[in-house]
Amino acid sequence: MRYIDAFNHFNPKGYFDALLESPAGQKDIGKRVRGIPALYDLDLRRKVVEQFPDYTQVLSLGLPMIDRLWGPDKTPDMAKLANDGLAEVVAGNPKHFAGYSAVVPMNNPAAAAKEAERALKNGANAIQLGTSVNGGPIDGKEYWPLYEVIEKSGRPILLHPARAREMPDYVGEEKSKYEICSVLGWPYETGVTLSRFIFSKIMDTYPNLKVVSHHLGGVIPYLEGRVSHSFDQMGARTSDEDYEGLRKSLKKRPFDYFKDFYADTAIEGVRAPMVCGIEFFGADHVLFASDCPFDKEKGPGYIRSTIAVLESLELTTDAREKICFRNAQAMFGIK
Amino acid sequence: MRYIDAFNHFNPKGYFDALLESPAGQKDIGKRVRGIPALYDLDLRRKVVEQFPDYTQVLSLGLPMIDRLWGPDKTPDMAKLANDGLAEVVAGNPKHFAGYSAVVPMNNPAAAAKEAERALKNGANAIQLGTSVNGGPIDGKEYWPLYEVIEKSGRPILLHPARAREMPDYVGEEKSKYEICSVLGWPYETGVTLSRFIFSKIMDTYPNLKVVSHHLGGVIPYLEGRVSHSFDQMGARTSDEDYEGLRKSLKKRPFDYFKDFYADTAIEGVRAPMVCGIEFFGADHVLFASDCPFDKEKGPGYIRSTIAVLESLELTTDAREKICFRNAQAMFGIK
Repeated sequence: MRYIDAFNHFNPKGYFDALLESPAGQKDIGKRVRGIPALYDLDLRRKVVEQFPDYTQVLSLGLPMIDRLWGPDKTPDMAKLANDGLAEVVAGNPKHFAGYSAVVPMNNPAAAAKEAERALKNGANAIQLGTSVNGGPIDGKEYWPLYEVIEKSGRPILLHPARAREMPDYVGEEKSKYEICSVLGWPYETGVTLSRFIFSKIMDTYPNLKVVSHHLGGVIPYLEGRVSHSFDQMGARTSDEDYEGLRKSLKKRPFDYFKDFYADTAIEGVRAPMVCGIEFFGADHVLFASDCPFDKEKGPGYIRSTIAVLESLELTTDAREKICFRNAQAMFGIK
Repeated sequence: MRYIDAFNHFNPKGYFDALLESPAGQKDIGKRVRGIPALYDLDLRRKVVEQFPDYTQVLSLGLPMIDRLWGPDKTPDMAKLANDGLAEVVAGNPKHFAGYSAVVPMNNPAAAAKEAERALKNGANAIQLGTSVNGGPIDGKEYWPLYEVIEKSGRPILLHPARAREMPDYVGEEKSKYEICSVLGWPYETGVTLSRFIFSKIMDTYPNLKVVSHHLGGVIPYLEGRVSHSFDQMGARTSDEDYEGLRKSLKKRPFDYFKDFYADTAIEGVRAPMVCGIEFFGADHVLFASDCPFDKEKGPGYIRSTIAVLESLELTTDAREKICFRNAQAMFGIK
């Protein structure tokens, strides 16, 4: 079976050097990325890819949240550096890398729309977005020109979780404890951001926008009962906002928008949630992805375990091919 | 098949009157509960129960968060009023109700431990706790005497989500929008609170404490890959806390604690997440529950749909009986 890995992470050299020099790069983020050589060492990364037959990667930057590293004066240049670096790696290694997603300077919304347009014209196969910008939402009107650009391109958004530790676990606390913010908070914020894309009417305004949610939809498929029945009752719990009016003004049932999103298989190689997630989104809306190299082996671990889980599933040949490579071909524009 | 419904909601009369008179009861909470008569009308509630053969309910109060309704001077009396009211309803209707859980005044920790002791001696079959108290955490040392009382009793905690709207969706916002706080935030906070029970070492200190998490574990089963592999790497992302040291000082692997928790089937009658959740916790740790009467029909809807989903699953007779009533019998002390 051919596999196109739709969502995995790599930092091209010029960008990686700049990252390490940034204030955050000299602290936790730097500590984390330095410890995973396949995240920036191209030779090593190629060797990881070569372990798997008929397998290529669509590269995404290490993390899309460049707004955590630099201010809005610098991020436009840094996004360009990252995107051109990824383009070069892909162009130079077509047997390993089938394409790449571009990042945009979300703390500078006008520049974000511009960089998306430039990168997509330059061959980027998707735009990678974090679910928040410096912890704040991404459904505000200042970002709608960006979504218009992406919708027009026909290429998808790759939505990566971004919840910051400054989002505490409970009222009255200053920050999240025990890395709960990333372990649980990331897939939670994925669900939150998908919801906000619906209720802010981004999806009604840009109905052809394709949003691929990392980690198989975050928390959404498991909360199927709630995003259907509970959102159907939106307004019953609230009196200070007209949420019933909002719900009725949407073009579709809230649940139907959730089913229209796309998702990838990057859930660290577990089986029962994979069955649940594929059942929710359907084979037309799921893309194989590994999240390489964030496994314990720092490279091949999740590729191997995710392929093994997919091989263990009872799927029709048609469904399997769509998930493993055909959806990626169509959405990314890859042969 | 016999069914004992482990987690569903009812407000006994005296307590319900007090709730409506409380400041919050005169606003959103009052609006919400008044609209669901089977939540407080005993005759109507009995008729809901009678629709299902060989089916009884273990009653829990409408919501455990009495700290949102009254200050710490009043909640001890209000908890007593609620618990004695539930005891009376159960005693007077043994064919409909197999038992009840008690609430405790969590905004008054010393009184909470005392009321738990009193209610359990008086026959309460469980203690219902919210995942937060006025939005704050429940793993602080002030609550440990309560957990000691509950562990000693052998009866379980029924853990109900409680995330408040004051927990915003993103940094820089004042409150959650679009009821995301309850639709997605509730199962998220369930996962957060289970995590905090582990990492605060409540579970190491009270290893026989049984925690039944409402809504089939919140978000935990779907995040199986993260609560295993990501928590195994706890400490790698953080430099200002010694989370690696904390992880190594735990008696078990973080993942094993999650597997030791219990969960109920109250997920609004959907099938794929049910399979995923039962796979995660195992038949010994799942209890049938409906969340009655919070369905669109305001009573029988989730009972019917949850039974239908369970009947559609391929389970051994042994596993099915455990889930449907035997685990409840053992944990609640019901014949």
